[in-house]
Amino acid sequence: MPERRRSWWGWGWADEALTGDSAAKLATAVAAALGAEVEPRPAPDLGDLDLAPPRLTPPAGLADICSSDVYDRSGHTYGKSFRDVVRGFHADLPHPPDLVAFPRDEADVVDLLQWCTDTNAAVVPYGGGSSVVGGVDGGGDWATDFDGVVSVDLTRLDRVLDIDRASRAARIQAGALGPVLEEQLRPHDLTLRHYPQSFQFSTLGGWLATRSGGHYATNWTHIDDFVESMRVVTPSGISESRRLPGSGAGPSPDRMFLGSEGTLGIITEAWMRLQDRPTFRASAAVRFSSLAAGVAAARAVAQAGLFPTNCRLLDAGEARASAGVDDGSAVLVLGFESADHPLDAWIGRAVECCADHGGETPEGIKVSAKPDEQREGTADAWRSAFLRAPYGRDAMVALGCVAETFETAVTWSGFDALHQGVTGAVERALKEVCGGGRITCRFTHVHPDGPAPYFTVLAPSRHGSQLAQWAEVKTAAADAILANGGTITHHHAVGRDHRPWYDRQRPVPFALALSAAKHALDPAGMLNPGVLIG
Amino acid sequence: MPERRRSWWGWGWADEALTGDSAAKLATAVAAALGAEVEPRPAPDLGDLDLAPPRLTPPAGLADICSSDVYDRSGHTYGKSFRDVVRGFHADLPHPPDLVAFPRDEADVVDLLQWCTDTNAAVVPYGGGSSVVGGVDGGGDWATDFDGVVSVDLTRLDRVLDIDRASRAARIQAGALGPVLEEQLRPHDLTLRHYPQSFQFSTLGGWLATRSGGHYATNWTHIDDFVESMRVVTPSGISESRRLPGSGAGPSPDRMFLGSEGTLGIITEAWMRLQDRPTFRASAAVRFSSLAAGVAAARAVAQAGLFPTNCRLLDAGEARASAGVDDGSAVLVLGFESADHPLDAWIGRAVECCADHGGETPEGIKVSAKPDEQREGTADAWRSAFLRAPYGRDAMVALGCVAETFETAVTWSGFDALHQGVTGAVERALKEVCGGGRITCRFTHVHPDGPAPYFTVLAPSRHGSQLAQWAEVKTAAADAILANGGTITHHHAVGRDHRPWYDRQRPVPFALALSAAKHALDPAGMLNPGVLIG
Repeated sequence: MPERRRSWWGWGWADEALTGDSAAKLATAVAAALGAEVEPRPAPDLGDLDLAPPRLTPPAGLADICSSDVYDRSGHTYGKSFRDVVRGFHADLPHPPDLVAFPRDEADVVDLLQWCTDTNAAVVPYGGGSSVVGGVDGGGDWATDFDGVVSVDLTRLDRVLDIDRASRAARIQAGALGPVLEEQLRPHDLTLRHYPQSFQFSTLGGWLATRSGGHYATNWTHIDDFVESMRVVTPSGISESRRLPGSGAGPSPDRMFLGSEGTLGIITEAWMRLQDRPTFRASAAVRFSSLAAGVAAARAVAQAGLFPTNCRLLDAGEARASAGVDDGSAVLVLGFESADHPLDAWIGRAVECCADHGGETPEGIKVSAKPDEQREGTADAWRSAFLRAPYGRDAMVALGCVAETFETAVTWSGFDALHQGVTGAVERALKEVCGGGRITCRFTHVHPDGPAPYFTVLAPSRHGSQLAQWAEVKTAAADAILANGGTITHHHAVGRDHRPWYDRQRPVPFALALSAAKHALDPAGMLNPGVLIG
Repeated sequence: MPERRRSWWGWGWADEALTGDSAAKLATAVAAALGAEVEPRPAPDLGDLDLAPPRLTPPAGLADICSSDVYDRSGHTYGKSFRDVVRGFHADLPHPPDLVAFPRDEADVVDLLQWCTDTNAAVVPYGGGSSVVGGVDGGGDWATDFDGVVSVDLTRLDRVLDIDRASRAARIQAGALGPVLEEQLRPHDLTLRHYPQSFQFSTLGGWLATRSGGHYATNWTHIDDFVESMRVVTPSGISESRRLPGSGAGPSPDRMFLGSEGTLGIITEAWMRLQDRPTFRASAAVRFSSLAAGVAAARAVAQAGLFPTNCRLLDAGEARASAGVDDGSAVLVLGFESADHPLDAWIGRAVECCADHGGETPEGIKVSAKPDEQREGTADAWRSAFLRAPYGRDAMVALGCVAETFETAVTWSGFDALHQGVTGAVERALKEVCGGGRITCRFTHVHPDGPAPYFTVLAPSRHGSQLAQWAEVKTAAADAILANGGTITHHHAVGRDHRPWYDRQRPVPFALALSAAKHALDPAGMLNPGVLIG
C-alpha cells in the first residue's frame, strides 16, 4: 500500500484536494457569490517541476537523513499561505531548499547544525510546514548569502517520552503532529487540547516557535500557557529549562524561545501541561441584531470570569456561511467543557450576559464544530468546515481567485475603529485592484481587555495577477491594523511576510536586545535568516 | 504635622514597629515557642549612623531630585530581607548609596541615566524597597567598580494617567505604591487586585521588575498576566510596547522586562489589566487529618478548572498559628470572588473535591484574611496577621532570633520529595547551627501542575550570630530546593542573594542570550550590577 502523501503545493493530504464535482460546485458557488467569472485550472504536476540542482551534498554521517528528492524539496519550499499556494500552483519555485533533513533524534539535529555551520548553510526549521506568514521558506533572495539551505523536518521526532499523571504533564518530542501526539495521550485519558486550524499538519515545535493559538477562546489562548519547560538546540549549545509549574526567577527562558520562529534554535522537546478529557459540555448559539450588540455581549462574557472554551462571534457574513443564519444577524457561539463538573451555572450565566445585550438563543442554529478529539472518530467532524477550509482555499486558487485570511487583536475600546478601518481599507483596495470581493470578520479568541478579530477575504482575480493584487490588499489591511492599535498577528506569527509591520510595532530597544540575543546563540546568523530579525 | 516616616532599618512605618507591651508579649511567646532565651535589644537610632561621605555631587539640573540626607541614604541601603533588617538593626551600613534620586517625571529618569553614564555611576532602581533577595542594595563590594551609586526612588511617579473602562485597563506610573494606585482606581469601581504581603510598601514597577506574585492563588498568579504594555527607560533608549490584549508577534517584549529586576532598564509606566470590584464572595476552611490528604485536595481543586482566588494549604504548624487549629490537622483555605455571579456552584464543587480526599468543613475555623480593598477601611484588617508579619519579624530580629521565609514551586509529583528534602535539610541545619528552631509550610499559590510552597523558619540565635547562622540554613534550604526539582524563587525574585542557585537553574544558552541583551541595552553595565547577570 503506497504511503499517503502530503500535497507538495497545497494543503494537507494530496488525496483530499477538491476535485471533480466538488470543485465544479465550488466554482459555481464562488462565481455566484462574487458576481464574476472564474477560470478553473488543473492542479500542477510534480513532473513539470524543474528545480535548480542542489548546492549541497550531505556528508556520509548525515546522508541517511538528508533528501534532495524533488518531492521533498518542492514540498519544503513554501508554507501554506495564499501566496505560497499560488506560487506552488504555478510551479513558481525558484528557491527550493538544497536539502531536506529528517533527523531521527536530537543528536542528528546537533550534528546537522554543526555541519551547516561548517559549510555556511542556512537552516530553516520546517515544523509541519503550515506557516501562513512566510515563516518556513526554503529559499529566497537571502539564500545567496549562504552556500546552501537545509530545511529541517522534525516529524520523525514524534514520541511522547514521559507522562506525569499527577502533575498532568507530558514530555513530548517537538516533531509530533497534532493527531500523532493526541493519539499517544489518549490511553492515559489526557489531552493537550491544542487545536489550531492546522492541527493535522502542524507540530508541537511549530506551535511553540510561533506562539500558536489553540482551542481555548479565553484564558489560556496561546500554546505559551501550556509550557512547563523546553529543550532547544542552538548553535551555542542546548538550552533546557527547568520543569516548573511557575517561577519568578528572572525573565522567563521559555518566553524567549516562544515566538522565536526558528531564529534562535531548534526546539526538540517540551514538557507540556495537559488536560483531563472533558466529560461535561454545554453550548449555545446566541443571535444579535447587530454586530455591535454581539461585541458588547462577547465583552461581557470575556470579563465575567466564566472562561468559556468557545466564544466565537460571527459577523453577518460569517453567520451566513458557517451557521446558516441569513437575516443579517451576528451570532455568538458559546461553549464550555469540563472533566470535573456540570456546566449549568457557567453557560446559564453566559447566556444571561448575552441577554443583557439583546441576545436571543433560538433553537436550530447549527454551527460547525471545532475539532475535538471526542469527535475524532467520526469522519464527518474531521471534514468539518473548520478543518476543510484550507482545501477550499486551494480550490479557489485554482479558480484564479484571491482567498486569504488575516488576524489581529485589539482592545475593546479600540475594536470599532479597527473594524471599520480595516474593513474600509480592504473594501477600497478590493474594489480598486480586484473590482470587487468581500471581507468578513469573526472573533477567534476573546481576552478580558479585547478580542482577536479574524478576517476572511474572497475576491475575483485572474491567474497571473493574484499575487500582486493580494499584496496590495494585504498592505492596506496591515497598515490599517497598525494605524488602529492592533497587532500584526495574534497567533499566525511574523515570518517574512509580516516583517514590515512587525518592525514598526516592535519597540526599538527590544529589537536591539533580541538581535543581541540572536547573535549570542546563532553567531553565524544561519537560523531562518530574515525571519523576525536579521 | 510631621510627615509619617518609613523605618530606615526595618519594615514599613516607623510608628508601627512593635514596642512596649506588644514587644514584651512577643518576647515571652517566642521564648516559650523556641524553648530558648531571647535578648531584647532596643531599635537603632538614626543619629548613631556614621555613613561614608557621598562620592557624588549631582549637577545643578538634578540637584532638586537628589538627596544625600542620612535618612534617605540609610533607608535606601538595603531591602527588607532578614539579612537586611539584621544589618540595619546593628547599624551595619558600610555601603550606602551615594545619592538617592526622586525623579518627578520620566524626563528626570532619562537625564539621571545620562548623568550616571557620564560619571560612571551605578543605578539601582529601588521600587518600594521591599526586596527580600538583595535586589535593591545601594552598595556592596561591586560598588568600587563605579565612581558612585545612585538609588532611584520612583515613588513620586505615582499617578494613574488613563483609564480605559471598556477594556478594563489603566495606564499607571511605575512608582505608585499599592494603596496609592488602588485609591485612584476606586472611584472608577476598578481594582488591580494585586496584594503581595508587601502591598503597602512596594510599587507597580517593583512588582513588574520582580514578577511579583499577588492576590490570585490560581490561574493569574503573577503580575505578568496583567500587563498590556510597558514603558521602560534604558540607557539605549525608551522601550514602549504596544498596548494589546494578546499577541503572537515574536517573543513577547514585555516578558523580557518582566523579571529583569532593574538590570535592563527602569520601568516608568505600564498599561495594566484591571478587575471589577468583587461583589460576590464564598469561602471555606477545610480540615484534613494529614498534610498529604490536604495536598491531594489542593491538587484536585487546582486541576478542576474552578479558579479559586484563594487556595492556601496550611500545614499543622501554620494551621496552629494562623487558624487556631491545634490538633495537628492541615487546613485548606478556599476563597472565590466575582463581580459577576453568585459562587455557589464554584465553592460547592471545590468543597466536594476536598471531601473526596477526606476534607471536613467544621464551623468555627477562623483564618486571617488576605488584604483586600473591601476591608481597607477597617483598621483591623490592615493589621491582619498577613500584613503585620514583617513588623513581627523585625521584633524577632530585636530579640536576637533567626526569622525568615523562603518559597519555591514544584510539580505535584515532585512535592513530597521536595517537602521532605527541604524540611529535613533545614531542620538538620537549624539543629546544628542554632540548636533548635522550627520550619513550617503553606501553599501560597497552586497551579494545575504543581504548588508554590512557602516556608517559614524561626530559630533561636544570638545578636552577632544571626547572619552567619541564617546563611547556613538558607544554603541548606536552597540546595535542597534545587536538588528536588524546585525553583529558587516562585515570586520573591533573584536579586543578589539567590544568584548562586539561579546561575545553576538557568539554562546556559539563555544566560548567554540574556547577557547579550543586557549589554545591548546597558553597555556600561550600570544598571543594578550583580543582580541576575554580570
